[in-house]
Amino acid sequence: MFIEKLISKINEKKNPTVMGLDPKLEYIPLSIRRKNLELFGNTFKAASESIFEFNSKLMDAVIDVIPVIKPQLAYYEMYGIEGLIAFCRTVEYGKKKGFIIIGDGKRNDIGSTSQAYSSAFLGRTVLEDGGKAAAFDVDALTVNAYLGIDGIKPMLEDCASYNKGIFALVKTSNPSSSQLQDMVLEDGRKVYELMADLVTEWGNELIGEHGYSSVGAVVGATWPEQLKTLRSRMKSVYFLVPGYGAQGGGAADVSAAFDNKGLGAVINASRSLMCAYKLDRWKKDFTIEEFDLACREEALRMRDEITNEIN
Amino acid sequence: MFIEKLISKINEKKNPTVMGLDPKLEYIPLSIRRKNLELFGNTFKAASESIFEFNSKLMDAVIDVIPVIKPQLAYYEMYGIEGLIAFCRTVEYGKKKGFIIIGDGKRNDIGSTSQAYSSAFLGRTVLEDGGKAAAFDVDALTVNAYLGIDGIKPMLEDCASYNKGIFALVKTSNPSSSQLQDMVLEDGRKVYELMADLVTEWGNELIGEHGYSSVGAVVGATWPEQLKTLRSRMKSVYFLVPGYGAQGGGAADVSAAFDNKGLGAVINASRSLMCAYKLDRWKKDFTIEEFDLACREEALRMRDEITNEIN
Repeated sequence: MFIEKLISKINEKKNPTVMGLDPKLEYIPLSIRRKNLELFGNTFKAASESIFEFNSKLMDAVIDVIPVIKPQLAYYEMYGIEGLIAFCRTVEYGKKKGFIIIGDGKRNDIGSTSQAYSSAFLGRTVLEDGGKAAAFDVDALTVNAYLGIDGIKPMLEDCASYNKGIFALVKTSNPSSSQLQDMVLEDGRKVYELMADLVTEWGNELIGEHGYSSVGAVVGATWPEQLKTLRSRMKSVYFLVPGYGAQGGGAADVSAAFDNKGLGAVINASRSLMCAYKLDRWKKDFTIEEFDLACREEALRMRDEITNEIN
Repeated sequence: MFIEKLISKINEKKNPTVMGLDPKLEYIPLSIRRKNLELFGNTFKAASESIFEFNSKLMDAVIDVIPVIKPQLAYYEMYGIEGLIAFCRTVEYGKKKGFIIIGDGKRNDIGSTSQAYSSAFLGRTVLEDGGKAAAFDVDALTVNAYLGIDGIKPMLEDCASYNKGIFALVKTSNPSSSQLQDMVLEDGRKVYELMADLVTEWGNELIGEHGYSSVGAVVGATWPEQLKTLRSRMKSVYFLVPGYGAQGGGAADVSAAFDNKGLGAVINASRSLMCAYKLDRWKKDFTIEEFDLACREEALRMRDEITNEIN
């Protein structure tokens, strides 16, 4: 199952962190960008080549440190078809190198459309004469469950058939998550607590031997109090925690996401790893051309900071 | 502005309907599929060619009848990169033929990621040396606002700059939309009513001369009572109404979505148009090979049924 594969990879690297790959051209050294500009002109193709080169060097740099990568689809879709080719190459390269891949797409729809998203990212697409093929084929996909179980059920079936997982948005890291998610229902629960209860229930058939389900939840690092109460409310649900680093969440904030065995969560950092060379703590040691070396140092630091906090 | 362009196109065709293009291989005549199977093998490329041919014939068939098409991204993503090439070709063909294009992707995220989705579908992506290019470039995009205004704001800016629109999920057509959307808050509003109020507010800066905003809402045809109360609650918000036809909503159900001038909503049908040849009312007259002729008859019938109901 996905959840057991995830836990096993976390244990192997002794590190519950995720590298978010949300690349923008401006993060990438000019040496790479100028080369592709000369080869392909000022096009999406040039951007796509630069992004893949950037991503692959980042993955190489942390291969023995970080167990999971999370490319965010928006940053690839913005470069059109060529951008999605960079997404596919990133996923393929990441798999070959042994990373677990979470596709961050926050997909959502109902019935047969949800099934189509599930086929695109988790399952298989039916071709002619009963043939089937995988399209984007990540290990897990982030989803938005505003539409209820109708949008989730087809994905649960593919999770079971193909050892895949989903992470549903529960309480997001941004300030305005309060506009809807924090509103109080007449039964006393907040909207995100209702969502937490639904997500927990939906995952009940996909619980592995460590007591966690392949149906996880996204809970932001910027809300440490809520992380703590959700950890005890959603005992069988693994958390994907964004908002560490650039968004302001620290190791003490995210420690509440873990159980007393040090399991229960993966902590994502995107900008603080991709652009570690810009951080105050590294900018004297590394240039932008050494983005990969800086990323490795920051990945090691982040690992140590988080594992010290939870042990 | 998007909303004025939409209303003008609806008035031109005297028809407030949308053709959803959610293609599956099984909907497409064997003559088309076998040809592409021979040319390209049992591949996503063959599927992509068949889908584009199917879509373009459907568009040709209703060109003087229907003002808006709505390709649903999931059905293209399931065929991988090749599927997205069919999406792009469909959008390009639709634009050339004068349709308004709503990209149905229900995208959602926060801050710079929301900006990336907005660049991908509504605005422009920054390349080297200040160059900009459009990636998928539809007229409007469906979005999911569970994350609050942080996920919507970057899109509002692109809507203003590039004359684009968004439609945010408010009350969806599926049975389990009640699990979250119908829950009652302590202030007496249901969750979808809170969402309705937020969406209305977010659109206040983008209201055109007809009193409607370029920030619209998705409200399902399967909930006629809610359509009626939302129509009076969201006076400046145009509705995109799915669920007519195959999902069970009828003309009487959707009439509540319109104001007393016959404006205020576009009604989407997908399967009942794409697969009109399967409907009881047409299957004696048309074979699957005549899917385009059947689609045209159903489009005319749907137009007359809805316009009779609202006039």
